[in-house]
Amino acid sequence: MPIYNAPLRDQRFVLFELLDTASELKSLPAFADVDADVLNAVLEEGARFASQVVHPLNVVGDKQGCRYEGDGVVSTPTGFKEAYRQYVDGGWPSLSSDPAYGGQGLPIILNNSIYEMLNSAGQSWLMYAGLSHGAYACIREHGNEAQKALYLPKIVSGEWTGTMCLTEPHCGTDLGILRSKAEPNADGSYDVTGTKIFISAGEHDMAENIIHLVLARLPDAPAGTKGISLFIVPKFVPNADGSVGPRNGIKAGSIEHKMGIHGNSTCVMNLDNAKGWLIGEPNRGLNAMFVMMNEARLGVGMQSLGLAEAAYQNAVAYARDRLQSRSATGAKRPDKVADPIIVHPDVRRMLLTAKAYVEGGRALTSWVAQQIDRELNHPDATVRAESAELVALLTPVVKAFITDNAFDANVMMQQVFGGHGFIEEWGMSQYVRDARINMIYEGTNGIQALDLLARKVLADNGAKLQKFGAIVRDFAMANGSDPAMQEFIAPLADLGEKLGKLTMELAGKAMQNPDEVGAAAVPYLRVVGHLVYGYFWARMARVALDKQGSGDTFYSTKLQTARFYFARLLPETAWQIRAARSGADVLMAMDEAAF
Amino acid sequence: MPIYNAPLRDQRFVLFELLDTASELKSLPAFADVDADVLNAVLEEGARFASQVVHPLNVVGDKQGCRYEGDGVVSTPTGFKEAYRQYVDGGWPSLSSDPAYGGQGLPIILNNSIYEMLNSAGQSWLMYAGLSHGAYACIREHGNEAQKALYLPKIVSGEWTGTMCLTEPHCGTDLGILRSKAEPNADGSYDVTGTKIFISAGEHDMAENIIHLVLARLPDAPAGTKGISLFIVPKFVPNADGSVGPRNGIKAGSIEHKMGIHGNSTCVMNLDNAKGWLIGEPNRGLNAMFVMMNEARLGVGMQSLGLAEAAYQNAVAYARDRLQSRSATGAKRPDKVADPIIVHPDVRRMLLTAKAYVEGGRALTSWVAQQIDRELNHPDATVRAESAELVALLTPVVKAFITDNAFDANVMMQQVFGGHGFIEEWGMSQYVRDARINMIYEGTNGIQALDLLARKVLADNGAKLQKFGAIVRDFAMANGSDPAMQEFIAPLADLGEKLGKLTMELAGKAMQNPDEVGAAAVPYLRVVGHLVYGYFWARMARVALDKQGSGDTFYSTKLQTARFYFARLLPETAWQIRAARSGADVLMAMDEAAF
Repeated sequence: MPIYNAPLRDQRFVLFELLDTASELKSLPAFADVDADVLNAVLEEGARFASQVVHPLNVVGDKQGCRYEGDGVVSTPTGFKEAYRQYVDGGWPSLSSDPAYGGQGLPIILNNSIYEMLNSAGQSWLMYAGLSHGAYACIREHGNEAQKALYLPKIVSGEWTGTMCLTEPHCGTDLGILRSKAEPNADGSYDVTGTKIFISAGEHDMAENIIHLVLARLPDAPAGTKGISLFIVPKFVPNADGSVGPRNGIKAGSIEHKMGIHGNSTCVMNLDNAKGWLIGEPNRGLNAMFVMMNEARLGVGMQSLGLAEAAYQNAVAYARDRLQSRSATGAKRPDKVADPIIVHPDVRRMLLTAKAYVEGGRALTSWVAQQIDRELNHPDATVRAESAELVALLTPVVKAFITDNAFDANVMMQQVFGGHGFIEEWGMSQYVRDARINMIYEGTNGIQALDLLARKVLADNGAKLQKFGAIVRDFAMANGSDPAMQEFIAPLADLGEKLGKLTMELAGKAMQNPDEVGAAAVPYLRVVGHLVYGYFWARMARVALDKQGSGDTFYSTKLQTARFYFARLLPETAWQIRAARSGADVLMAMDEAAF
Repeated sequence: MPIYNAPLRDQRFVLFELLDTASELKSLPAFADVDADVLNAVLEEGARFASQVVHPLNVVGDKQGCRYEGDGVVSTPTGFKEAYRQYVDGGWPSLSSDPAYGGQGLPIILNNSIYEMLNSAGQSWLMYAGLSHGAYACIREHGNEAQKALYLPKIVSGEWTGTMCLTEPHCGTDLGILRSKAEPNADGSYDVTGTKIFISAGEHDMAENIIHLVLARLPDAPAGTKGISLFIVPKFVPNADGSVGPRNGIKAGSIEHKMGIHGNSTCVMNLDNAKGWLIGEPNRGLNAMFVMMNEARLGVGMQSLGLAEAAYQNAVAYARDRLQSRSATGAKRPDKVADPIIVHPDVRRMLLTAKAYVEGGRALTSWVAQQIDRELNHPDATVRAESAELVALLTPVVKAFITDNAFDANVMMQQVFGGHGFIEEWGMSQYVRDARINMIYEGTNGIQALDLLARKVLADNGAKLQKFGAIVRDFAMANGSDPAMQEFIAPLADLGEKLGKLTMELAGKAMQNPDEVGAAAVPYLRVVGHLVYGYFWARMARVALDKQGSGDTFYSTKLQTARFYFARLLPETAWQIRAARSGADVLMAMDEAAF
């Protein structure tokens, strides 16, 4: 069975040494009492829970899958609901929620580290709980007081879970054509009717109630995305006292048989005059749903980060253990029949690729979580606004760059196992199969790339990108005169300059031909992703250089990983810049019938 | 259910328009009677068999898998043995085998095209038959006359199938440490004992007998790879008249549960004093087995080529059918609720990636098959030797470059389906899961890269590579003055020059530090692969330019695909050259314990 140990040393490096979280939190009044001891205690408890309670269920979930029992009933794999009970009893769902609704009021950056561990231990299991925080955020921002009072305490405590019901059989990306309908009732509620598909955790046996957030159209709604409203549609209609009332007309019709995440139920949800309550303004449902969707997109990045960390740990263990062939520079273990495969350069190339991507992703997502804490809690409105812009800019990067990298990394970690990697028994296939969905759902990675280039960069003439660019430039300026930092600063500055030129060029082309945006978007996101990772790897190298005299080999390892990243991964940009510049004609010239 | 139609138009383009197979065969006396009509008739019949008989079984095989019935008995999925019976009755196994043993004596290049179709239709199914041709080639080259007379007619007819038994639980890549033993008997036979794993088609219910080629050690064998001998170990010991005799002591102990190719039985084979007969010289078993292994490596490239073609066809059909969002340049189907997704540039990027890789791979593998036909049949020994060298050089490229590209392409084709791609019902997951094994077995792609750089390039100081380079240079010289060819010749010539420099640099570094070879091998293979594809794409563009006035849009499509390849795929070399040059230190500096 695969192993998993929470990477606490590296998580602490990121939180405390790289991002200085303990002092940072002092500038946010809400977290005045949150010191390093609190953070460390929660991290340790989270590590224990993830590795001891959740991790053992991961293979079980993959093998058993969920079962559709008929009449809308879905049962989850053995042990899932017991672990969820422990999760609720341990107070984990409420970690970073508002104390006004029973939350513990701890920072998102802490929750983020816990989510990384839980995703490593079991993405399928965590998804039952994971969407609840998005539902919480959405209701908190867009719900009325009665809705907040009724739903939030139950979601915060974990007694009830949440879902997002967007996709329909004929529409996923293009929500403008969705057909589900909501007819108003005299009592202010709505009767919602339609079919939703691909609803993760849409039905299960782990919580007392499931709160669905459902997109549907009002009778008089305009066509397209401007005629979509958002409704709260609970599985059981709650009574005023918060107890569950009658079964509502939203039922799972079946579950999907999928390539991976077998432990999570992916449901077809049939709504037949299900009672729903409008949340937010009529016809502004997509806007309200985006609170949840953005959180989910960051969450998907965390899913892949977690999977890649787990796959990496297993590949390292195998590479140290498996004896096969001698090192090209002479036997390293003459006492054994062969050397462990970790002596071979190409095995190291694969391991280091995963390591560099995981640690870069950990730095990025923790930094983004820090920005979210600022966005939600900083006393200065300018800081809040600036953080919000950086989060908006980097959300598609977290979603797409991390999930693409993690998939490649997981495929490589499987490759380290040779033939054994292909056999289900070893567990490496599951990491690849589970990671595959993360490139697809919550907006495919192609859609993320469009979001980055069109909406986040070109729509404001690069203002948000320049904000991030200024951060990179400031760091480069501050460290450019240090000879020890040259190997990191020089390529980073060079890439920053190239990205600036590329962005200008694409902005010009896009004005001539809107297809230029779609043609360049995916390679453009790869280039931005490497600028972001390059920045974090340079910052991590800075910390490591400062502390390498400490005698802790952690820092020399960090430096070596940074060197690997700059030598072998960042140069992908030489390719992607060319691809991004190659223009739309090369894609659009071919006749549809000629494919 | 997925669709599949044999790509006969493009296969004919490669065979007749690009490689001029009909005239080429005239220079090989063995094929004097094989004209275009014969080739076309076989292609058409093969297309029918693949799409109508084999293809419908592919999903069945994935869903049912094989079943281990106990006591060494394995049953294959519903319909597999009936299809195999039709395959044998149709004479397909004997297509390109020697008439002396009942073969039809048709060229390998034809068999290659048939194999592409059969792999598109069902890799798992074809594997039962596919390894037989390798066993045939190995026995034909290394067996004695009695062995040839006894085994070859049965293998050629398809009545018996073959396997390769190399891997053991503790050794895959490193065959030098294998432990299976062969004790000589007085009658000239051997008693072979040991455990073999990952034996594809090791046991099944599709043929009367299974002929295992087994690596084992003689009692007095030296350690390492120089002490390995090869044995024929039949499931049933044949009587002298070719009828099957007693059950031999080689039995499947279990079958593996795998990520993909569920329809093929991957067996643990237990040998308990199984009767075996030495084939070839004692202690020269690896040398003999390499005949089979090289053929298998080319065969694995064909497997992935076939899978990528099939995945591409399905993604194109979906992209034409699925309506989602409007084109950025204005509605293309105002009569519909949205445009088909094939109007979106990023969907085209994915489709064209698969198309360019598939068609490049088809040209390469057909050209290699042509070289094999020359190697085996050309009257001039110099031509035979030169062809053999080119085949040896390009075998790791066919195996690794095609399988890596096809995996990426299949993942992209799955991505075109969005969420539906992740659902098993649509069939795209299977293409990804099946394609995954091809990067692993018959020597992992990392091993292929080492084989290319160390054995095929550096070991002869680049002589073989220069032979291929001269072919590229001649083509570039002949076409360099044509302005219409500039867009293809310029980047091709540039890449050729860079590859030459890179090879020299790596040769120098390798003398200083043998780990430099392993550090550079994988990116080096990517660079060589693109030189090879760039050459074939330029050649295909040449043919297309010459014929684009014909009014057949096939040629303009071919030119557009060539442009896409040069604009967006070949520039990967800008990255890989840097990676290949980045040196071993960046991989080797880290302490084993620090990973």
